[in-house]
Amino acid sequence: MEPAPLAVSLGDPAGVGPELIVQAWAQRDAEGLQPFFAAGGADLLAMAARTRGIDLPVVQIFHPVEALDCFHRALPVLAGADGDYTPGLPDRDGARLALASLTEAVRLTIEGGAEGVVTGPIAKARLAEVGFTYPGQTEFVAEACEVHPGDAVMMLAGPRLRTVPLTVHIPLERVATELSDALIERKGRIVAMALMRDFGIAAPRIAVAALNPHAGEEGRMGDQEARLIAPAIERLRTEGIAIDGPFPADGLFAPRSRESFDVALCMYHDQALIPLKTLDFDSGVNVTLGLPIIRTSPDHGTAFGIAGKDIADPGAMIAAIRMAGECAERRYGG
Amino acid sequence: MEPAPLAVSLGDPAGVGPELIVQAWAQRDAEGLQPFFAAGGADLLAMAARTRGIDLPVVQIFHPVEALDCFHRALPVLAGADGDYTPGLPDRDGARLALASLTEAVRLTIEGGAEGVVTGPIAKARLAEVGFTYPGQTEFVAEACEVHPGDAVMMLAGPRLRTVPLTVHIPLERVATELSDALIERKGRIVAMALMRDFGIAAPRIAVAALNPHAGEEGRMGDQEARLIAPAIERLRTEGIAIDGPFPADGLFAPRSRESFDVALCMYHDQALIPLKTLDFDSGVNVTLGLPIIRTSPDHGTAFGIAGKDIADPGAMIAAIRMAGECAERRYGG
Repeated sequence: MEPAPLAVSLGDPAGVGPELIVQAWAQRDAEGLQPFFAAGGADLLAMAARTRGIDLPVVQIFHPVEALDCFHRALPVLAGADGDYTPGLPDRDGARLALASLTEAVRLTIEGGAEGVVTGPIAKARLAEVGFTYPGQTEFVAEACEVHPGDAVMMLAGPRLRTVPLTVHIPLERVATELSDALIERKGRIVAMALMRDFGIAAPRIAVAALNPHAGEEGRMGDQEARLIAPAIERLRTEGIAIDGPFPADGLFAPRSRESFDVALCMYHDQALIPLKTLDFDSGVNVTLGLPIIRTSPDHGTAFGIAGKDIADPGAMIAAIRMAGECAERRYGG
Repeated sequence: MEPAPLAVSLGDPAGVGPELIVQAWAQRDAEGLQPFFAAGGADLLAMAARTRGIDLPVVQIFHPVEALDCFHRALPVLAGADGDYTPGLPDRDGARLALASLTEAVRLTIEGGAEGVVTGPIAKARLAEVGFTYPGQTEFVAEACEVHPGDAVMMLAGPRLRTVPLTVHIPLERVATELSDALIERKGRIVAMALMRDFGIAAPRIAVAALNPHAGEEGRMGDQEARLIAPAIERLRTEGIAIDGPFPADGLFAPRSRESFDVALCMYHDQALIPLKTLDFDSGVNVTLGLPIIRTSPDHGTAFGIAGKDIADPGAMIAAIRMAGECAERRYGG
């Protein structure tokens, strides 16, 4: 693949997305970030820069590859969609702009114009009002890539821990119903392959969390460990995957235990997210495994309440851009 | 109340309990521990001391108050029950000794001979074989105190976080069924009172975790937040308790968020235990709130696999003894 920049979508323009894109660009050298461009929003981003006291030269580009030449001196912004900057006050025009930016960034990445896409935070409820019918951006990206949504696997990566929630946005009482050995096997396989290909881990060590307290304590507190989780692990091991468990979830993320695995497969959303955010709230990256493209996202929402106030932490946006670049380098070469 | 020592039960003699009691005594000055005595096991403890290279003078005592005089120079051990020290190899004699030690330590504390009881780690399956019919030590202590087991509330306390699991040792799929607004209210009230009386917090700030991801996202992923949790919080607030929530559980234990509360009420075992053990695996204390006596315990098991090898970390045992002493000082005076 020819050298190409990363594409970054704006997210909801009333959220913290625009100011964090600008902030990441301002810190590009210190953070060693790969060249990226914003998918639209030239005026909007210039306004967001002012709220953070950043002197932001913007260069409008018409093709992604132009970003490579000007990134060192200006933020490259794809000509086209733009809008008002009204932090904290989401509206339908903003939602339409967020959707246009996301659509364009993903399209360009699929076409090969960008090495990966970093998606800014959106407000699902706002996007739904303008016709966005997906549970989240991950499912949108999966469909654009013609990948079954069940095969687009969310991994959360912080500085000290990577976790994968096998079930995600469902009520807690439905977790046991949705879990199956087939689900664990399928996603476990996708995770193992992605860590090899995109994360440079030759033989990823996968730890699997139990569903029930004390891993069910030999069946006294639940049987999913013996009935679903252990058989799935066993089958993946026969494929040569270094996977182990199920381990009681409470101790799995303790300091010494964390050293023993590269990623933890978790049974539900909060089991995966609690340890990650407990350790580090501000630099978590949401990365979608199992896609033909590279896609990352800062693991936080639009944070409308603090948008435009120059207080949003850029750690996760910077980490998401850096991770997309590193994955691209491993997948496509430097 | 007259000055009195703390009572410490041995736990399973094949586990790490005995060596950690000895280690705690050896570090009594550096750690500023209150005088305590062991409920039985004089020979056993002397043997455990040798495995850790500790020169342990033992003084057999016949009444708890004698511990106060000799604690500075020897480990006071209540005359009576004793047994063999065979680390890593639990047997029925050991289980009987563990039960005798627990029974005696709790009895003496209820009678006022000890200011509080610290229970060493037991193996429930082994104790069950010798007629122990309780789910755990907490329920045993509750019954001895004539307290309804539902009113003996487990709190986990680490150096940086306190959490209370409102449901405990049940399969994850039963959590939603067992939760009720009455349960949240009742335990919330017990927690608030205990933090005032025993932990010296005049107006405890209680944060309540949500059950579902994103706190149910306005009902799109579960309704327990609106149906059970919020009404219970509302009623407790009308009683003057500083309680707030339900908060999405994933972000609740993040560094900045932790500063905003004194204790988090959690809906299930792993929700409470994951953040605690992620932050600090070796110094968690299990304290039972709502009892007429003070009871703490190190928040780890018997660890048969490492017993007798001089590698078990004494942090939690030391923290449990210190916390029992501090609670006693607040409740009964210095």
